[in-house]
Amino acid sequence: MSYFDKIEPIRHQGPTTTDELAFRWYDKDRVVLGKRMEEHLRFAACYWHTFCWNGFDPFGYDGTFERPWQHMADPMEAAKAKADAAFDFFSKLGVPYYCFHDRDVAPEGATPRESVENLRRMVGVLGEHQQRTGLKLLWGTANVFSHRRFMSGAATNPDPEIFALAALQVREAMNATKALDGENYVIWGGREGYETLLNTDMKLELDNLGRFLSMAVEHKHKIGLKGPILIEPKPREPTKHQYDFDVATVYGFLKARGLENDVKVNIEANHATLAGHSFEHEIATAVALGIFGSIDMNRGDMQCGWDTDQFPNNIPDTALAMYHILQGGGFTSGGLNFDAKVRRQSIDPEDLFMGHIGGMDVSARALLIAAAMIEDGGLAARVKARYAGWEGELGRDIRGGTLSLDALADRTLNRNTDTRPVSGRQEALENWLNRFI
Amino acid sequence: MSYFDKIEPIRHQGPTTTDELAFRWYDKDRVVLGKRMEEHLRFAACYWHTFCWNGFDPFGYDGTFERPWQHMADPMEAAKAKADAAFDFFSKLGVPYYCFHDRDVAPEGATPRESVENLRRMVGVLGEHQQRTGLKLLWGTANVFSHRRFMSGAATNPDPEIFALAALQVREAMNATKALDGENYVIWGGREGYETLLNTDMKLELDNLGRFLSMAVEHKHKIGLKGPILIEPKPREPTKHQYDFDVATVYGFLKARGLENDVKVNIEANHATLAGHSFEHEIATAVALGIFGSIDMNRGDMQCGWDTDQFPNNIPDTALAMYHILQGGGFTSGGLNFDAKVRRQSIDPEDLFMGHIGGMDVSARALLIAAAMIEDGGLAARVKARYAGWEGELGRDIRGGTLSLDALADRTLNRNTDTRPVSGRQEALENWLNRFI
Amino acid sequence: MSYFDKIEPIRHQGPTTTDELAFRWYDKDRVVLGKRMEEHLRFAACYWHTFCWNGFDPFGYDGTFERPWQHMADPMEAAKAKADAAFDFFSKLGVPYYCFHDRDVAPEGATPRESVENLRRMVGVLGEHQQRTGLKLLWGTANVFSHRRFMSGAATNPDPEIFALAALQVREAMNATKALDGENYVIWGGREGYETLLNTDMKLELDNLGRFLSMAVEHKHKIGLKGPILIEPKPREPTKHQYDFDVATVYGFLKARGLENDVKVNIEANHATLAGHSFEHEIATAVALGIFGSIDMNRGDMQCGWDTDQFPNNIPDTALAMYHILQGGGFTSGGLNFDAKVRRQSIDPEDLFMGHIGGMDVSARALLIAAAMIEDGGLAARVKARYAGWEGELGRDIRGGTLSLDALADRTLNRNTDTRPVSGRQEALENWLNRFI
Amino acid sequence: MSYFDKIEPIRHQGPTTTDELAFRWYDKDRVVLGKRMEEHLRFAACYWHTFCWNGFDPFGYDGTFERPWQHMADPMEAAKAKADAAFDFFSKLGVPYYCFHDRDVAPEGATPRESVENLRRMVGVLGEHQQRTGLKLLWGTANVFSHRRFMSGAATNPDPEIFALAALQVREAMNATKALDGENYVIWGGREGYETLLNTDMKLELDNLGRFLSMAVEHKHKIGLKGPILIEPKPREPTKHQYDFDVATVYGFLKARGLENDVKVNIEANHATLAGHSFEHEIATAVALGIFGSIDMNRGDMQCGWDTDQFPNNIPDTALAMYHILQGGGFTSGGLNFDAKVRRQSIDPEDLFMGHIGGMDVSARALLIAAAMIEDGGLAARVKARYAGWEGELGRDIRGGTLSLDALADRTLNRNTDTRPVSGRQEALENWLNRFI
Repeated sequence: MSYFDKIEPIRHQGPTTTDELAFRWYDKDRVVLGKRMEEHLRFAACYWHTFCWNGFDPFGYDGTFERPWQHMADPMEAAKAKADAAFDFFSKLGVPYYCFHDRDVAPEGATPRESVENLRRMVGVLGEHQQRTGLKLLWGTANVFSHRRFMSGAATNPDPEIFALAALQVREAMNATKALDGENYVIWGGREGYETLLNTDMKLELDNLGRFLSMAVEHKHKIGLKGPILIEPKPREPTKHQYDFDVATVYGFLKARGLENDVKVNIEANHATLAGHSFEHEIATAVALGIFGSIDMNRGDMQCGWDTDQFPNNIPDTALAMYHILQGGGFTSGGLNFDAKVRRQSIDPEDLFMGHIGGMDVSARALLIAAAMIEDGGLAARVKARYAGWEGELGRDIRGGTLSLDALADRTLNRNTDTRPVSGRQEALENWLNRFI
Repeated sequence: MSYFDKIEPIRHQGPTTTDELAFRWYDKDRVVLGKRMEEHLRFAACYWHTFCWNGFDPFGYDGTFERPWQHMADPMEAAKAKADAAFDFFSKLGVPYYCFHDRDVAPEGATPRESVENLRRMVGVLGEHQQRTGLKLLWGTANVFSHRRFMSGAATNPDPEIFALAALQVREAMNATKALDGENYVIWGGREGYETLLNTDMKLELDNLGRFLSMAVEHKHKIGLKGPILIEPKPREPTKHQYDFDVATVYGFLKARGLENDVKVNIEANHATLAGHSFEHEIATAVALGIFGSIDMNRGDMQCGWDTDQFPNNIPDTALAMYHILQGGGFTSGGLNFDAKVRRQSIDPEDLFMGHIGGMDVSARALLIAAAMIEDGGLAARVKARYAGWEGELGRDIRGGTLSLDALADRTLNRNTDTRPVSGRQEALENWLNRFI
Repeated sequence: MSYFDKIEPIRHQGPTTTDELAFRWYDKDRVVLGKRMEEHLRFAACYWHTFCWNGFDPFGYDGTFERPWQHMADPMEAAKAKADAAFDFFSKLGVPYYCFHDRDVAPEGATPRESVENLRRMVGVLGEHQQRTGLKLLWGTANVFSHRRFMSGAATNPDPEIFALAALQVREAMNATKALDGENYVIWGGREGYETLLNTDMKLELDNLGRFLSMAVEHKHKIGLKGPILIEPKPREPTKHQYDFDVATVYGFLKARGLENDVKVNIEANHATLAGHSFEHEIATAVALGIFGSIDMNRGDMQCGWDTDQFPNNIPDTALAMYHILQGGGFTSGGLNFDAKVRRQSIDPEDLFMGHIGGMDVSARALLIAAAMIEDGGLAARVKARYAGWEGELGRDIRGGTLSLDALADRTLNRNTDTRPVSGRQEALENWLNRFI
Repeated sequence: MSYFDKIEPIRHQGPTTTDELAFRWYDKDRVVLGKRMEEHLRFAACYWHTFCWNGFDPFGYDGTFERPWQHMADPMEAAKAKADAAFDFFSKLGVPYYCFHDRDVAPEGATPRESVENLRRMVGVLGEHQQRTGLKLLWGTANVFSHRRFMSGAATNPDPEIFALAALQVREAMNATKALDGENYVIWGGREGYETLLNTDMKLELDNLGRFLSMAVEHKHKIGLKGPILIEPKPREPTKHQYDFDVATVYGFLKARGLENDVKVNIEANHATLAGHSFEHEIATAVALGIFGSIDMNRGDMQCGWDTDQFPNNIPDTALAMYHILQGGGFTSGGLNFDAKVRRQSIDPEDLFMGHIGGMDVSARALLIAAAMIEDGGLAARVKARYAGWEGELGRDIRGGTLSLDALADRTLNRNTDTRPVSGRQEALENWLNRFI
């Protein structure tokens, strides 16, 4: 008997339905801008928040959820029961993809070897579930931040033996991803940062992190892993400061090591706002820098200074993010993962579905809005018009790189005319946007 | 008669003095770690906050300060009176350096040419003051953000004619800096960012900003300007988002354009904290990335979300910043500028002195503390010990780049031993630091 | 010739219009929940941001807007020209109300008496405009924060003579509000706070602020001013810390002085978020505490730590605020004021209209959504059901105040049964809300 | 054998010691302002962070600390072993006081009755430890936020049966505090707030919270508990929004219920900064409002948006807090508790000592600095001088309450003279403060 026995597969029923376990907007086969919704959105649900987290928070001394597999005595049996529940959930929800960390799906063993064996065995189990259900793996990743051995980092640990333990885990997780035909491999540097500069050799740590990433890139090519490695920026939490602070920081890190063609970014909405950026800023930056990969579509709470990982629920905000994704060409190997968790008071199986349904409906609606904005073309036309001068002679000369500062300054001095600014029309554009909501 | 007539030159009187117009700690000839304090600290005072700002804020409709030169009818006469007051102030204060924007020292004219002529004339006046007083120019810069023509940016303006007007200003400001024997040239991209992504072509703007910077670097070489160009990172304000968000962002920007050897950073404490970093983080990052240049030693208020530009007053915080500067080799062409302003309620001439005296004393004390920390060597030794494993065989093999992920993972698997973490000793290090306060 | 000559009165044209100078949703006579939209929303536009601000910011040295009346030599002539433009704007926009500070409408004179006379004369001018156009005054207020004499506060100034000067201004502004049949009187304590605790006697300042408020309340009764006095909470800016930090703080201040029946709050969205609250939190708190008065419907930018005073543009966020206002009974004497300003790059007359049109349309749509939520009743029903236990015997006993802690604890001990929690259903409720967007 | 066997009792060895397990500044018998340091500071260490927390964080799946009593099978045996370790620690550290939650010292039982019995038994054990060691209880409190039954609040729970379960716990914790001669009783409303307003009846919850507090006050009188009940304000975390946001909010809550004489506040540094205040602001506010009780001297990290609960290490910041405490009359029943935890990488028994030693030394030094500031009297004198006008005739008339707004306004109008502001001298005062560091 499944944990989700009472739940029927979720169906599209249209905007007017009052059924809480149905989609109102996500209709996977509906064609938008020439592609099916499912192909545009490439939804994934994650293993960790939904099947591993028990509702614990730092002010609780136990979880609140009481999922059956979280109380089983044998870890491998629990892992299998968890996988049963997870694939039952993914299937009923109707997402095409899922994502996992190695330790989400297979328990840590008593020794490194036992951990490796646990994972390899569970890869078999997951493979069978994939085959049975048609579900695919959007990305895999290794959890090299939860175990106490990684308390001071993995690739940036002061002890090279811990770097080596992380290398084993990442190798195995990459191999598992390959075995399960995963479309990307993600690295989130959860403890790659510092608690205090007082005990930190930043240059050494950055170099080691670069070395680790280079080794992973080389391994990716060796095993023929599809798609890019994706770094997921986050400014802080759990550490005081993480090295992959935001998209622009990751770009500089990659550029300094010549890795910008093999490594892209997986951008999380909540991490963007913790770093002092809007979600769409991070997407637009990654697009401008050529490193856009995938997204974790989970919002924060703007009054809370930590990672709340909530399902998106604000339609215009989500539409703006989707507009920038579409403007950047849409997803290729990446997708839209919900690294989101239901609130710890949402303790029922139904809550897991409602959280994801809401997130998928908001994302679907955002896609429709963004597509309408693009089909209208008004915004793009205005932006083009605003910068039209850069298509003129002066603009082309400057951008062509032939004008020296002296030559340009002399031209300006001879011209001896001021230039009047024109309105930025921000309010008009914001109003324009609201036509599509 | 000078605005500062009642003020005598500020002298060192030692820690026990109760004279509010004396240094308690800054003693320019005192030797610390083999150099005179004055050579270590390379203090500069700035023109804009102290002589141009009139105490206005967005909730005032006039200033509070009533400096005489702010009420003179003829702009060039006012500029000369301002210069008289400024050099009187710098001299009495006893800083070796000052800094300015073009528009701080010379008024905007009715035409571009008139503005250029105003500046060129004032360069003569400043040169005479320098010669008379022995004061030197730490850096010059151009104000391409205050005039309404720059409301949508200078190098990132949608209109290339405004880019061209900025180019004229920067050329002239660089030439002025050269003429006055300035030791660095600073670029702060005050409006190089956006108010809304809706009307912004980020890629074009980033490219144009890069083009502008490359032109400035080329010009620097052409005219033989000493020292580097310094970019001053800031995350936002006045714009919603600036492109030079923080040190790591600037690094990526430079690296992508091959400018990291000609351009360094001028780090401001308050800009660091607005970007979600500690001041020492930004310094340590710049040192680690090889782009540390100079600092603006002015703190923010951690409860206020805008640039308060206050004089530093927290001794341990300042000592930590100074420690990282010294660990990075200290200043070369850069220095310690106070881009700081007295509060708008501090309306008397004495307040200007007390603000700077306090900042200089705190910085001097921070230098003494940082020097004592370095002479003790305890912190450096502990950091070295913490990473000692990276000097061992495994560490060297990993860092040498010869180990593949597979080879390292196999080694780990064969070893099949977990590694126990060791204490990070943060509290002990924090206590150690307090020994020196 | 008017500044707004080219603009025709704004009309409702329905959701499909592409006319940028038309309402898509605000249709003043449309009946919602039994009242006309105009009666529900009670829109007001403000004098200061739209007619007094010139586009200056702390990084500009002039404004960007170039409104004609901002460049007239004679202050009273300028004030009259400004009033002409303002009423032309209000009328064409179609708001029923406006708001002003004394110094917005009449210039500061050379002496206190001259200032009073200027205001009294302009009250006559405004009265004629009101009569001519049918516009009404939602509230008046006094600017006792912009002039340099108020740099250290008005009612909380260290100098009682400045308290007295503020008293004169407030008396005159209250009398002006009465003369113009204003429906509320607002107090915003812009400089009633501190820059540093080091020079501050907080208790004395709080007492004086209370005394000032009591005097104003007494005067309100004396002159028969309609409606309440409204305090507008704000946590900081321009000061480091203001005494009217947020709604709950103001409540405690009022309660300690027995003023909670005469004084309500005017809640600003942007001030709420600066204080670490959501806008709807502040509204719900004021409703729960019985001091809800009026609102300033202008949002901040969640990435910026200062008051950006932008027009609302997020439909679901605004709907949530409106839902809480309706649940609290809607506006009585208060209304929905736009204390909002167009961006400083929005320099054209049209921009002023588009900003307000967008804000009014978003608010109108928010009203429709909130009304639909109320008519559906689903949310209210769920909240009622969630707390149903408090209608049972135990709930009534506890709330009745007859059970002592001992009696209740003994009952629990004897019952000796744990109680299982039930799901909070947050995701379901968030999905429910999105049905109405 | 004790967990702390290798640690000798901590002794004062003076500022020059390099012993990491000695006090450099805290010298309990040193007399400062006529009282012994120990009497001034009234240090307490807490049970929860040091003995209950295992180093878990939301990104870990186990703790890092491995304290022996955290791995014992029998909960009551573990509780006794924990108490042995705790009192060994408190004694060796040399704090006069400790603090606890009910569930810190005694395990949750299978039924409410069993939990009560566990606590009652452990009160006996603690009493023996107190008698043996001379340690005293600064305050007790009840943990009504960690168990899953309290996930939606205790006194503000939607279910009155959970309110009743909380009432039992609080009754027992108050009785335990009485039995152990505790000097205060603390209430921290960890889950008394909301996750979403959508499912919340704020008015009902506030009323119930008030009812609960009134019951506790009545019980305090009934059992003759010494000292006040202390509410510990916190703005958020774990909930999105807590009802006891800050000191001013708590004051309004108490005032509305007439509880301001029986209930004071326990102010935590980290909670202050999370609420957007400085620590000294919260202290000064509580002093001004007459509700200052006790403090939790643990700082946050200004770059992190959550409760980091670190030991204080910034000397000037701590001195400023201490100055306001002394100016407010110092502690009466309250004290200085370290609700602080060592970093999760500080895994050794020594780290626990070093964290507390550092905190105690910083606090001791802060006391010496604050005392020197008071003995100097310079700051108090300047503040007095700044407000001297309020001792004059006009000031007395205004404060006396006899002047109406009209009378005061008429006086001002007749006087018809502006008043010039005087400098606030913030920089001078900040420099003055640094004389004492």
